[in-house]
Amino acid sequence: MPPVANSRFLDDLEVGERFSTRAATLSEEEILDFARRFDPQPFHVDREAAARSIYRGLIASGFHTESLVFRLFIELGVLAQASMGSPGMDELVWRAPVRPGDALRAEVEVLEVRPSASKPDRGIARLRYRGYNQRGEEVISFIINHLLKRKRPA
Amino acid sequence: MPPVANSRFLDDLEVGERFSTRAATLSEEEILDFARRFDPQPFHVDREAAARSIYRGLIASGFHTESLVFRLFIELGVLAQASMGSPGMDELVWRAPVRPGDALRAEVEVLEVRPSASKPDRGIARLRYRGYNQRGEEVISFIINHLLKRKRPA
Repeated sequence: MPPVANSRFLDDLEVGERFSTRAATLSEEEILDFARRFDPQPFHVDREAAARSIYRGLIASGFHTESLVFRLFIELGVLAQASMGSPGMDELVWRAPVRPGDALRAEVEVLEVRPSASKPDRGIARLRYRGYNQRGEEVISFIINHLLKRKRPA
Repeated sequence: MPPVANSRFLDDLEVGERFSTRAATLSEEEILDFARRFDPQPFHVDREAAARSIYRGLIASGFHTESLVFRLFIELGVLAQASMGSPGMDELVWRAPVRPGDALRAEVEVLEVRPSASKPDRGIARLRYRGYNQRGEEVISFIINHLLKRKRPA
């Protein structure tokens, strides 16, 4: 379970606020394991075929990168008490390949905070996630609409 | 590896064409395993906390549902020879919770086929993915821009 010490409710989040995560290294075994389950394309699951592809070697499934970047933020505990799930996600861009041994970290920025018009106990926070590799290159970005509890119902 | 018998190149895809997949059942153990790795929120990893949440029981991580729906399409082999990866994804909507024992199937529709202006050997196919449960309810939808090889370079 994520820590709750730094957790926020919808009302605690400010537009423009940013959160930074630790880095996590992706091993070849993790890349292969995820891809065999969810994305069995040659450049994700077959070393030799990957070497012949435009990527010139194995790369992580984009869904793996996305899920890992999300996890890095969730484990900070910022949403540990407030999160009620999510209605959706927009504008996902895979900007650069992620390879075995790459260490990814995430930065998350609050884009918008919108209390619900009909339900006074909740609202939507729109957060932009960006994932970076160990060279500081942005590898992925996406926006998640988080349904969050309010601390102080209107 | 996906079968290649039914594989298509960019030029073979027609706007409006649809593909249907088999159904796959998600077990509680699979839901817990994915969520512990990538989405350790109480309603995904803790049966008791989930029972007290707005979902009234464990639900699958949205990233799990997304990855599984993608996998169901990939295993059809439609993109087995043409796929060069993807620059991004749009308009993801999680419409209904996915619970242990739910059987998901996917339908994928070709929205747009766009040869590259600068590279004659490739182009983008924009595909809409929709995932349905065993009651026919839509649980997720999203659009992936696929980078695909052309069979007949212009």
